[in-house]
Amino acid sequence: MIKDNNNINIAIIGLGQIGSFLYNEINLRKKDIELKTGKKIKIVAISAKNKNKKRKFKIDKKIFYSNPLNIIKKKNIDIIFESIGLSDGISKKIVESSLKNKINVITPNKALIAKHGDYLSKLAEKNNVNLEFEAAVAGGIPILRTIKEGLATNKIKKVYGILNGTTNYILSEMEKSNEIFENVLKKAQKLGYAEPGNPKLDLNGFDAFAKIRILSALSFNTKISKSKCIMEGIQNIKLEDIKIASQLGFRIKLLGISEIINGQLFETVHPCLVSKKTYIGNVNGVMNAVITEGRPVGESVLQGEGAGPGPTSSSLLSDLLSILRGNIKYPFGIPSNKRKLIKPFNNNYYSNSLYIRFEVKDVQGVLSLITNRLAKYRISVKRLIQTPDKKNKKATIVIITHKTTEINVKNCLSIFKKNKNILRFPTLIRLYN
Amino acid sequence: MIKDNNNINIAIIGLGQIGSFLYNEINLRKKDIELKTGKKIKIVAISAKNKNKKRKFKIDKKIFYSNPLNIIKKKNIDIIFESIGLSDGISKKIVESSLKNKINVITPNKALIAKHGDYLSKLAEKNNVNLEFEAAVAGGIPILRTIKEGLATNKIKKVYGILNGTTNYILSEMEKSNEIFENVLKKAQKLGYAEPGNPKLDLNGFDAFAKIRILSALSFNTKISKSKCIMEGIQNIKLEDIKIASQLGFRIKLLGISEIINGQLFETVHPCLVSKKTYIGNVNGVMNAVITEGRPVGESVLQGEGAGPGPTSSSLLSDLLSILRGNIKYPFGIPSNKRKLIKPFNNNYYSNSLYIRFEVKDVQGVLSLITNRLAKYRISVKRLIQTPDKKNKKATIVIITHKTTEINVKNCLSIFKKNKNILRFPTLIRLYN
Repeated sequence: MIKDNNNINIAIIGLGQIGSFLYNEINLRKKDIELKTGKKIKIVAISAKNKNKKRKFKIDKKIFYSNPLNIIKKKNIDIIFESIGLSDGISKKIVESSLKNKINVITPNKALIAKHGDYLSKLAEKNNVNLEFEAAVAGGIPILRTIKEGLATNKIKKVYGILNGTTNYILSEMEKSNEIFENVLKKAQKLGYAEPGNPKLDLNGFDAFAKIRILSALSFNTKISKSKCIMEGIQNIKLEDIKIASQLGFRIKLLGISEIINGQLFETVHPCLVSKKTYIGNVNGVMNAVITEGRPVGESVLQGEGAGPGPTSSSLLSDLLSILRGNIKYPFGIPSNKRKLIKPFNNNYYSNSLYIRFEVKDVQGVLSLITNRLAKYRISVKRLIQTPDKKNKKATIVIITHKTTEINVKNCLSIFKKNKNILRFPTLIRLYN
Repeated sequence: MIKDNNNINIAIIGLGQIGSFLYNEINLRKKDIELKTGKKIKIVAISAKNKNKKRKFKIDKKIFYSNPLNIIKKKNIDIIFESIGLSDGISKKIVESSLKNKINVITPNKALIAKHGDYLSKLAEKNNVNLEFEAAVAGGIPILRTIKEGLATNKIKKVYGILNGTTNYILSEMEKSNEIFENVLKKAQKLGYAEPGNPKLDLNGFDAFAKIRILSALSFNTKISKSKCIMEGIQNIKLEDIKIASQLGFRIKLLGISEIINGQLFETVHPCLVSKKTYIGNVNGVMNAVITEGRPVGESVLQGEGAGPGPTSSSLLSDLLSILRGNIKYPFGIPSNKRKLIKPFNNNYYSNSLYIRFEVKDVQGVLSLITNRLAKYRISVKRLIQTPDKKNKKATIVIITHKTTEINVKNCLSIFKKNKNILRFPTLIRLYN
């Protein structure tokens, strides 16, 4: 809870792309915020690794602290923004000691919340302060607030979507420009859509997965799950797959999915073939989209820009207003001690139609080897497209199967590792049902 | 504000489709609501025109009042739901006297809010109670809450979308089933998507327009405008137009649009040709979608079911939770006395590309008559498709123009009223830019 005093002191820790944009935005919107909340806000302390780094927005160096922990100790702070972004280390320390010192915390740090959200929300409740993290999921889309408030009394059974703008940009751009993954990744890095140093956490699905864990906890009123899940990124998606998918009427999207199946929690992130005719198949570029299915509301869709300082600041400031207005006190919508840990769904029984691409030697018997093997595991074929490459005496065989389970397909495909006529282990992409 | 007492008394006035579903839903979700808010709620009074009407959900007749105003006088009510739906009369009386008696009000009544929202919100603020109307706009989509909270500090410059499920269903279904307007309307009425008695307020754009007025006031922090606007419904959309539009790559959608142009407020509802490739061109059936453009967030999209008791109840209950949690006190996001009335944009200068369909006699000189007339008004032609109907010695001429203003096209078209070779006044549908 915010004190009744009308003068609110704010600190911002971390002045990178997000932090410095936020610093400027808060100063720009001061009057509007006072109008909407009756509170006068003031940034009284800032901290970052490098005081003198060149920034797009000028900072007031008189309020700069080299050690952010000193801000918490020395200054009379009401609300702190943590925008460093580590899952542990100094990020965790700042949030922890802020909450313990009864300072409200706002952070876009999905790695921190996905890992320590349960502990930190308990700490916030104990100290009667807010911990807000709207910007941690889907940038400018107010999806957490929508689940906590706009759809609050719905029984949500599924939440899924495109949660990572970097990978969605890369997949869209590969299709559009007919360029291979590596080239488009470089382009994304140039445009600032992908981390120049280490884009791994975007590409391998980890970023989307952290968001899915947060979404699950909010949607189903559960503790953040720690169970092992299917998490695949887009590193192995070839331009060829995108082209074949397109011919078949599909696009490839990296989807995060969270669902209650028979009372058990199923969470996953992996690339999917989705029909071009569907809504999700038409969310392209850096856009994010989140879809919830609930009762009684039915299907709800939220779409918006998923990254970048503008959209992120929009969410950070919505958290600020929520605190200033004295809204919502439970970080995950209900008291921590009422949130349950539910049993994870057995991933082996996750079932999908599949796209399987085989690269084979163009010799007799290969096709029947494949189809016999599939038949043995009762994987039935819906479509089969064989494209010969006569010059190289090779062929590409693409099979779209009917629904089958993970465990079944794993067993079925294992044999192809060692067959001399199968040139490499088949590429498998699930279809979104 | 809600009292600190944990026992909250609720009344529901109006037990039609919405009211009776809500009645049942509140009883179903009691425990969840207590978990999320710490408040015990109880429905202590209900009222409707007919006590003994057959309803899908059983009501407790012991708490039934014939005169709803007696509930306000006699019972110790904390929150009242008004779901009768009139813009004046008993609906207004109930809301008015509830607020005066310091009872919080929740209503899905767009007609009432669009007409009396300024007065009623002032009354609510004066009496320190909430007036909530999330369900008045776009059914289950929590768009008002999103503007007031999730996007609260953004500078919104435009809000538009598909705001009426009935008309969207009719237009989609005409395209899909190749049936004329009148037949599809009957189908919509059978399915419960259109009022069986008087679907006029949906069809003529009034329903969408009331929603646009509410959205404007919230998005731009302005008073509800009373100025005369372009409001057109779908009554004159012919199957022929839908087919021609489809051949040209468009769909016809009834759009509500509100925008600040040069510091002036522009509001309108009219059918539009939208590209099939756009997002809005693919929102079909009874779905609603609202798109906001703001700074710094960029474009945000919310989509969901726009009508029906389920989605509406979802929004009504989100209002209930907001009140129980003690959230937000200004019905329009900021204090009433800070909301300004801004100057309306001159509709004459609204400018669009146009689709114009002429039905003409197939005689020499008609085409040049049309094109000369357009040229005189500097309306330049982008595409022209002439389709002869030799048997009847007629022809259809469809012209897609470059952008031109309302006043210009009005003057230009006026001549065609009296020309013997022009068989009827041309059909005009604006393109969405």
